[in-house]
Amino acid sequence: MGLVLHNFFRSSTSTRLRAALNLKGLEYDYVSYALRNGETRTPSYLAMNPAGLVPALEREDGSVLTQSLAIIEWLDEVHPAPPLLPADAEGRARVRALAYMIGCEVHPLNNLRVLGYLGQQFGADDAALAGWFTHWVQVTFEPLETLLAASPETGACCHGDLPGLADLCLYAQVWNNRRFDIDMAAYPTIARIFAHLDALPAFQKAAPPNQPDAA
Amino acid sequence: MGLVLHNFFRSSTSTRLRAALNLKGLEYDYVSYALRNGETRTPSYLAMNPAGLVPALEREDGSVLTQSLAIIEWLDEVHPAPPLLPADAEGRARVRALAYMIGCEVHPLNNLRVLGYLGQQFGADDAALAGWFTHWVQVTFEPLETLLAASPETGACCHGDLPGLADLCLYAQVWNNRRFDIDMAAYPTIARIFAHLDALPAFQKAAPPNQPDAA
Repeated sequence: MGLVLHNFFRSSTSTRLRAALNLKGLEYDYVSYALRNGETRTPSYLAMNPAGLVPALEREDGSVLTQSLAIIEWLDEVHPAPPLLPADAEGRARVRALAYMIGCEVHPLNNLRVLGYLGQQFGADDAALAGWFTHWVQVTFEPLETLLAASPETGACCHGDLPGLADLCLYAQVWNNRRFDIDMAAYPTIARIFAHLDALPAFQKAAPPNQPDAA
Repeated sequence: MGLVLHNFFRSSTSTRLRAALNLKGLEYDYVSYALRNGETRTPSYLAMNPAGLVPALEREDGSVLTQSLAIIEWLDEVHPAPPLLPADAEGRARVRALAYMIGCEVHPLNNLRVLGYLGQQFGADDAALAGWFTHWVQVTFEPLETLLAASPETGACCHGDLPGLADLCLYAQVWNNRRFDIDMAAYPTIARIFAHLDALPAFQKAAPPNQPDAA
């Protein structure tokens, strides 16, 4: 395939995509960008991805895909086994909704550039940033826990016993939460699913501390 | 179908979904929730959607779908004509990436509950809130404009001449921007696409000012 993954070890969206590539059994070259040093804001990176974000997936022909959730859907269409979405429309709607609860309600509020803006423009100190981060996790993790705990469709993973799109997002977000010591006691189902995923090789290999730039 | 749309006229995610339902030619009962009055935080609403968010789409059998982007994908699978995503995987990856630039990078930062938190916890006044809103629009609309203007795949709409998933997000976000008087002069391609969409009956019918609760 000749895939090149432009990413960063601690980036939650990068973690999602790494786990997806691993689940699909796809090899990739790993290129790291230290976000804090502005390494995704260089002219050469912006020429590849004008948004200046990771991850970006470069294919053998030089073409580039962006936005982790879009890349994961593409991967699932082009490399259908093992599937990351259920076969039925109802199941896909459930899995996508769970994934987007994290992808559209938690992660966008808690990434590095947002925390940076709060510090610079609102003078938020570490305690205020921790409060912000924790608040947005809580606001979504509470209903996420409720939905997962209540549904007979929840298995070892978010939907049955095989990992998929929602699990990719959950796994990456729980890693992200650890940076702010989020107490997982209130979210036993999420914690159980995370522990299950964290024992799978595809997820282990995608975990932030196991990346080459995690020094 | 007996669809019930639980939503709010000014909610950007609601606007997206209304336009999608209209494009598919689906009728729905309109139920409005005044977000500022906490009408999505009542026990009965939370029983239906524990996240306490709009939109939610209730089906005839009482089952409920949540998360606008998940609902739109479901609509496109169950009611495939007219399609909201291209037929090819490359095209779908492009359209989803454009949609998620708005759905995952702009809208989550600029919705009502986030602005409320900034006011309450950081003492942000109207000027600071306008600065925040404008900043996150700009950070994504600049690369979005670049990507749309540079691609031969951009047509009257984001991808060719027929409206799809990315257009639904773009349309709703530009409506949202108007609340903060975002100057669209820097985004001529986005503005052109918005104007095209705004002349289509399915979008006109979905526009915030044309809803029953827009009084």
